Amino acid sequence: METVKHIEIKEGITAKELVKEMQKCGVIGAGRIGKAAEIFEEMLNNKCKIFLGLAGAMVPGGMRNILKDLILDGYIDVLVTTGANLTHDLAESLNFPHIKGESNVDDSKLNKKGLDRVFDSYLQNKAYQKMEDLFNEHLSEIEGKRLSGSQFLKLLGSWIKDKNSILRVCYEKNIPIFSPALIDSGIGLMLWGLLAKGKKFDILMFDDLKEIMDLVWESKKNGVFYIGGGVPKNFIQQAMQFSPNMSDYGIQITMDRVEWGGSSGAELKEGISWGKMKPKGKFVDIKCDATIALPLIYSYLKGIKRK
Amino acid sequence: METVKHIEIKEGITAKELVKEMQKCGVIGAGRIGKAAEIFEEMLNNKCKIFLGLAGAMVPGGMRNILKDLILDGYIDVLVTTGANLTHDLAESLNFPHIKGESNVDDSKLNKKGLDRVFDSYLQNKAYQKMEDLFNEHLSEIEGKRLSGSQFLKLLGSWIKDKNSILRVCYEKNIPIFSPALIDSGIGLMLWGLLAKGKKFDILMFDDLKEIMDLVWESKKNGVFYIGGGVPKNFIQQAMQFSPNMSDYGIQITMDRVEWGGSSGAELKEGISWGKMKPKGKFVDIKCDATIALPLIYSYLKGIKRK
Amino acid sequence: METVKHIEIKEGITAKELVKEMQKCGVIGAGRIGKAAEIFEEMLNNKCKIFLGLAGAMVPGGMRNILKDLILDGYIDVLVTTGANLTHDLAESLNFPHIKGESNVDDSKLNKKGLDRVFDSYLQNKAYQKMEDLFNEHLSEIEGKRLSGSQFLKLLGSWIKDKNSILRVCYEKNIPIFSPALIDSGIGLMLWGLLAKGKKFDILMFDDLKEIMDLVWESKKNGVFYIGGGVPKNFIQQAMQFSPNMSDYGIQITMDRVEWGGSSGAELKEGISWGKMKPKGKFVDIKCDATIALPLIYSYLKGIKRK
Amino acid sequence: METVKHIEIKEGITAKELVKEMQKCGVIGAGRIGKAAEIFEEMLNNKCKIFLGLAGAMVPGGMRNILKDLILDGYIDVLVTTGANLTHDLAESLNFPHIKGESNVDDSKLNKKGLDRVFDSYLQNKAYQKMEDLFNEHLSEIEGKRLSGSQFLKLLGSWIKDKNSILRVCYEKNIPIFSPALIDSGIGLMLWGLLAKGKKFDILMFDDLKEIMDLVWESKKNGVFYIGGGVPKNFIQQAMQFSPNMSDYGIQITMDRVEWGGSSGAELKEGISWGKMKPKGKFVDIKCDATIALPLIYSYLKGIKRK
Repeated sequence: METVKHIEIKEGITAKELVKEMQKCGVIGAGRIGKAAEIFEEMLNNKCKIFLGLAGAMVPGGMRNILKDLILDGYIDVLVTTGANLTHDLAESLNFPHIKGESNVDDSKLNKKGLDRVFDSYLQNKAYQKMEDLFNEHLSEIEGKRLSGSQFLKLLGSWIKDKNSILRVCYEKNIPIFSPALIDSGIGLMLWGLLAKGKKFDILMFDDLKEIMDLVWESKKNGVFYIGGGVPKNFIQQAMQFSPNMSDYGIQITMDRVEWGGSSGAELKEGISWGKMKPKGKFVDIKCDATIALPLIYSYLKGIKRK
Repeated sequence: METVKHIEIKEGITAKELVKEMQKCGVIGAGRIGKAAEIFEEMLNNKCKIFLGLAGAMVPGGMRNILKDLILDGYIDVLVTTGANLTHDLAESLNFPHIKGESNVDDSKLNKKGLDRVFDSYLQNKAYQKMEDLFNEHLSEIEGKRLSGSQFLKLLGSWIKDKNSILRVCYEKNIPIFSPALIDSGIGLMLWGLLAKGKKFDILMFDDLKEIMDLVWESKKNGVFYIGGGVPKNFIQQAMQFSPNMSDYGIQITMDRVEWGGSSGAELKEGISWGKMKPKGKFVDIKCDATIALPLIYSYLKGIKRK
Repeated sequence: METVKHIEIKEGITAKELVKEMQKCGVIGAGRIGKAAEIFEEMLNNKCKIFLGLAGAMVPGGMRNILKDLILDGYIDVLVTTGANLTHDLAESLNFPHIKGESNVDDSKLNKKGLDRVFDSYLQNKAYQKMEDLFNEHLSEIEGKRLSGSQFLKLLGSWIKDKNSILRVCYEKNIPIFSPALIDSGIGLMLWGLLAKGKKFDILMFDDLKEIMDLVWESKKNGVFYIGGGVPKNFIQQAMQFSPNMSDYGIQITMDRVEWGGSSGAELKEGISWGKMKPKGKFVDIKCDATIALPLIYSYLKGIKRK
Repeated sequence: METVKHIEIKEGITAKELVKEMQKCGVIGAGRIGKAAEIFEEMLNNKCKIFLGLAGAMVPGGMRNILKDLILDGYIDVLVTTGANLTHDLAESLNFPHIKGESNVDDSKLNKKGLDRVFDSYLQNKAYQKMEDLFNEHLSEIEGKRLSGSQFLKLLGSWIKDKNSILRVCYEKNIPIFSPALIDSGIGLMLWGLLAKGKKFDILMFDDLKEIMDLVWESKKNGVFYIGGGVPKNFIQQAMQFSPNMSDYGIQITMDRVEWGGSSGAELKEGISWGKMKPKGKFVDIKCDATIALPLIYSYLKGIKRK
């Protein structure tokens, strides 16, 4: 039987050493952060296809650089995310950074100032005007086309100049982005606006399903990394069920609970019953605000070369 | 200043009287159940268009009859939901009811038995075979067509014979169903299966966006009822922003928290900053397992005639 | 294998019938409410000693009548609770009911008005002055005495005239009250105030430990009912470990989570490892706001005669 | 208006730099970790009396060294904690470290092996035997005495040889420990065992109330640091109400929620209404597993000299 080691902190400790202390500790929340770092390192060493499912207010929450770096470092092979995260990334690319605000606030005053609130951050509503301009400018690239959502998002990435943009770096690194509920987002609204004005093009979301199925079908080894639940997690889980090899590794960071039965809070091991996760796979469920857990885990990984 | 009245329970108390006691009490969770009942009653009396956003394991959780009745009673005008809830409804319609199970269980054993776990309930995996049969049987009705997601779901409702089916009663009562991430579900997989076999048809999700926008555009008064967050809530909220009249009423039942900044846990009043909710609207945020809160609220409403 | 039955609600359904529907349903949160009702009924039929551990803002939350009735109905044999609940009960007995308020409020304004906030309810600060008067009036009954906390609380119950008082009905029905952290409460402060003025008496909390140990030692069959966690739950659990018969039944209503490792969120079954709960006992963990779950469960029980 | 800065992580980043990045970010969870570090630093620079309220499974969770170091570094002036944390500290001092375990486990098997489970860690039950030996050995130091809880805990600290013991370092550094519900703990049980055998001594918990009141009465500036809620938080909050200077600074790490109205989840600013917190004070509420948040904050502080 192994004993719990208490975390020890010396002045000047690096973040990586701190995560190693958490690994040694091995229990409750700290232990799970440690285990996630270990599993991610193994994914990087074991030639598996890494799927990032990304939900929640990650861009307003200050995680944009880390996400961009995860991609630039080559730690992610496929990104599945909400339209909101992409829309927020796009807004920042167009010079509308999020603004530090407050959560205990009179929302009708914000409305008059043109500030859209996301908990304790704000987005200027006029960002949407700039997005519209961008879409109009590049209209010819989509008119008359039949595109999957993911093909469109690649195109969108090519329109962005900001080097910190998640959409941009995915385009550059040729990382596919899936956003299964794309119509449920500011980006979706831009496309709808063009269609409503009579422009002709088809965005065929069922082609996205085909694309991700092809990706998992050919994959020998899979790893999943879920930040938040919702559609991004479920869409990857669903694809894993059709992979001949299921998922060998899984890391999930969420505050959702198991008790209500929804997919967002479900333990990764529940996926074993469905044939999504390998019975002998390595999984860890972290119950923590992702804006705290992700920087810790990434600090540990930073610098590791993928094999 | 009004004092807190303590809830008083007499033998034989009806569920409606219990909710009225909660109204009198007026604070913490019980008070919010009471307020939700009051707001819903006002929605029924005030000729507003009622949008139900439905997420979470509601069918596995025993809420199917209540949801079906909400529709049959005419309490709902538009349904936005996850593909999972529709898939589970479809499975039950095909004689695959959910099974009472356990959450502390060996998932690899379940896998061998063909049981897919949803927390403490199971679904037989062979239900998916039956769904495939149904889709094959009705293939001619979609082949060669261009359909919005909602048009397809109406068609699907017409294929179902089970009178307790949510899909079926929406078809009968002509209630539109939107499922913005339809590709992220068993139903989506069925359609993908047909496309993969070379069948030709287009499911155009962006037409759904147009349809819901038209619905809110013409609406004089809106009320939103959210069970769970996720895409269903956000999709309705997004549409409300484009309604000339925003939302006058809002009820939200969720266990998600505000502190992580995601849409699922956001207070309804945050929507005021975005122009989705009316500054003087009536809103209540209930933090409760929906399988407990919904039956209570519905017990209060049952029998009220909508004006 | 048993299937999930969907809850069915007819107009005029009684709250008891609603809980029976939840029993039939058998899964997720509703199913747990149903199971709790069943377990409590069995406790009432099986001659076991029933310990209520009560934490959280139950009096400000409108639960005072139900708690009082639980005692008057003879459904509770031992009460362990926080000093706060007793202090709030005392305040209401002295004509300081809680006041319906708001949670998004300027607390410094409330402070100037002499209102102490408990989430969305307020207590008038001058209630404490009235408590002081009561203690001064009855000072002779404690001066020079050595009393256990529970003996003192019985005395305090006898000073109260309000028939709705939990303290009062416990006194009348001879139900012992333990409040292990009594010094952490308004009532504790009253006693400290007297000691600080030089009055002489000893409140010996370790005598409470002896008293509850004697109670469990002689008990043939035990049942525990926890509303909230904290000291009340843990103090009863600790006593159960020393009962020759452990606990046969357990119901826990809490929103605390298991993942942080604290006693408040721990599953009841964890108590089996400690020898507090019987391996074959009947337990249910309900994750719900107690101001919603308790009225439902009590509605089911009301009218049952204890054997 | 200040914009949200995205956290940036370079290889080899120190944990302190990581927390500074979180400060820059300024929103959601990461921002709160950053703010807590800033507030704690200000407390260390501003000659205030720092009260640590400590609840939850901190010793089983691997936090013992950090807590011990916080005291050795002179960062804490008063400790208020649960009996459980002290008991776990004592067990480890007697060579019964906690053991890494699992949470999905058959608790009756653990029971047979003499292992008491605390979520995913275990404690050997025979640790209690060793504690009993220690108490018997030092019996003469308490027999015939009248001691406050805090005086007893100081004595207990002097019996411990383990230099990593929280109890021991508090004794050495003359830091008072209050454990208001001491009877609700293994240590309380040891004392009860002696009393039950007829040994004579009085542990007078109301003297603890007097002692902490004296401490706050004379204090010019106060800061509170709450890890978890429960009695430790409330006992300090209660004392602050009687401090002529209330609390200028507050940091709270908890996963409890505000919505149920209990003290554990209450925002620090609620304390303003009660006169516990200064209206212009600096407060931060962190919603995070303390085993993750505390090491981060402490990494930032480590090395700062208190003024």
